[in-house]
Amino acid sequence: MRARSVGVVAPKSMRFAEPLRLTSGASIADYTLVYETYGELNAARSNAVLICHALNASHHVAGVYADDPKKVGWWDNMVGPGKPVDTNRFFVVGVNNLGSCFGSTGPMSPDPATGKPYGARFPVVTVEDWVDAQARLADRLGIDCWAAVMGGSLGGMQALSWSVRYPQRLRHCVAIATTPKLSAQNIAFNDVARTAIQSDPDFHGGDYYAHGVVPRRGLRVARMLGHITYLSGEDMAVKFGRELRNGDYAFGYGVEFEVESYLRYQGDKFSEYFDANTYLLITRALDYFDPAKDYGGDLTAALAPARAGFLLVSFTTDWRFPPARSREIVAALIDNRRDVTYAEIDAPHGHDAFLLDDARYHRLVAAYFDNIAAEVTR
Amino acid sequence: MRARSVGVVAPKSMRFAEPLRLTSGASIADYTLVYETYGELNAARSNAVLICHALNASHHVAGVYADDPKKVGWWDNMVGPGKPVDTNRFFVVGVNNLGSCFGSTGPMSPDPATGKPYGARFPVVTVEDWVDAQARLADRLGIDCWAAVMGGSLGGMQALSWSVRYPQRLRHCVAIATTPKLSAQNIAFNDVARTAIQSDPDFHGGDYYAHGVVPRRGLRVARMLGHITYLSGEDMAVKFGRELRNGDYAFGYGVEFEVESYLRYQGDKFSEYFDANTYLLITRALDYFDPAKDYGGDLTAALAPARAGFLLVSFTTDWRFPPARSREIVAALIDNRRDVTYAEIDAPHGHDAFLLDDARYHRLVAAYFDNIAAEVTR
Repeated sequence: MRARSVGVVAPKSMRFAEPLRLTSGASIADYTLVYETYGELNAARSNAVLICHALNASHHVAGVYADDPKKVGWWDNMVGPGKPVDTNRFFVVGVNNLGSCFGSTGPMSPDPATGKPYGARFPVVTVEDWVDAQARLADRLGIDCWAAVMGGSLGGMQALSWSVRYPQRLRHCVAIATTPKLSAQNIAFNDVARTAIQSDPDFHGGDYYAHGVVPRRGLRVARMLGHITYLSGEDMAVKFGRELRNGDYAFGYGVEFEVESYLRYQGDKFSEYFDANTYLLITRALDYFDPAKDYGGDLTAALAPARAGFLLVSFTTDWRFPPARSREIVAALIDNRRDVTYAEIDAPHGHDAFLLDDARYHRLVAAYFDNIAAEVTR
Repeated sequence: MRARSVGVVAPKSMRFAEPLRLTSGASIADYTLVYETYGELNAARSNAVLICHALNASHHVAGVYADDPKKVGWWDNMVGPGKPVDTNRFFVVGVNNLGSCFGSTGPMSPDPATGKPYGARFPVVTVEDWVDAQARLADRLGIDCWAAVMGGSLGGMQALSWSVRYPQRLRHCVAIATTPKLSAQNIAFNDVARTAIQSDPDFHGGDYYAHGVVPRRGLRVARMLGHITYLSGEDMAVKFGRELRNGDYAFGYGVEFEVESYLRYQGDKFSEYFDANTYLLITRALDYFDPAKDYGGDLTAALAPARAGFLLVSFTTDWRFPPARSREIVAALIDNRRDVTYAEIDAPHGHDAFLLDDARYHRLVAAYFDNIAAEVTR
């Protein structure tokens, strides 16, 4: 596995002085995007692949850091030499989105107007805004047209948005475990998570930085809840079942079941590194994503501008964005006579399956990218 | 509808001075149970039906209160003259469980040892403990054998527990939308709810009464989350979809979608009347319920003592306790050569369907109780 890693990588950053006009009507001026690249951009600049991240991930898609060799990129099983997105053939770009908390400008960053962290004053951004910001990064990297834009979950929404917002700037759109819009239940889960954060007394209306605190309890609950929706019930049954930590009931309200221990651990870990305002911002971007909204709900009309070839993948046990949601996208693309490859992978791991190393899934993505590579060298 | 109501009812209470030994090994002394009755106990004392409540309900199963005619019982559509559980023929008893917060002894009650509310010192109780307490109430009411013990969800667990704990004391067990034990996912949702409550600074380790506060924010999050699991995704899609309260996105983190408004309203309402310690206690009783645990997981062995006839009902869109869970119970009862009627009702309303007035569901329950009534008058 190590042999197929991109190895030691280092993040770069790019400052943008031109203001970015946002969907909300607000603008953001003088922002920075942090990104990483793997592989070499070819002379024709035709082999670039953009990887878009989901809720809690970042620009660190593959490889490790020299000073932290355990911090492996979040999609390292997908991107690297000889991997499905093969860095021997592709120049891969990972970028941390605007409003996130891993180096790109976000709520934790100083507001140039005040010199203090933006906090609650950081503007709400949308999937479309992220795509616009990514397009500017592409401009600066000299990439007129991506060989592919690719992402899972919220990352898949960005890939879809690229296909209609900049149809001439990507040859392929790879959207995995995604949906054309959140369901009421999806929004409801996001709202419970946001309510947990907002009602933590340490939230201070989003300006907790000034108080030297972090709404850790709210973030913890938000993450525990999120985690349940990323796993399938079947997977949880296999992994944890009703296993007890200490053999028998303790008749109390502490951690007794293994699944409780796991969730609390995940919640604690997350609350140590993730920014609460970013959690609000990204879940809201998820809620808002709905390309058909301006077309009276007609997804076919919304996707009509697309020119790319498409790969869509869903997972049978994903109850967050189930296969039926991917099929809506496939149907709309077929209505538009687009080239679409669609696969429903029989996998037990729920929504998280898109991040896991499943042989059938990876073979499929590898085959799709092999075809793209053939175009590149043609 | 009003014509078929049991009309104005009044709760009664019964004090028990003999200590009740609990599953945990602890005891509770000198407790009170609040209950209601509807209809008349016949001379043979053979027409009594016990209704067991789920998480947030109470002894107030049917009818209204003289001083609050809007406070209709939680299963008023099921219990009343001419209704499926017909109070013209049955003497129906609703009882508030030990540890709940509607009048029976619970965490809010004064601990006789200190004169102050029990709070965190109220013992953990189990489904089996509730059934034992209900059996004592039956003794005092002169009911040797129930015509039926009936409940939905957690109430169904109590009915099942009656069937094996006191097999000679019920002729029928009616268990609706229930499960033989919680799944890892079920426990996980309970744990997130408990964590939200426990991490509210107003919780004070369960002794918030002494501080004159209530962990309202935590309770609110717990209830919002619970609510999502009671509804089906389909039902939420139909009821709320992506409807906005004010026509378009506001680009903020307040309530925008109708589903958010609904959930927050439900959460607020709940946090006004429900006790946080009771929430912990009842969700823990849910977690612990597992009659097969002492039989190496063998549900057939666990249910072997049962002598009652059984009606089990599940609902197709219930993803909390899906039909497959009821079928496990049915299979174990058939292994034991019990009389079992089982129906899977095609209903869109998820877990909550057991509380709703669905014609096919109610006809089925009515027909089952008609047969019981025929036994009674035989």
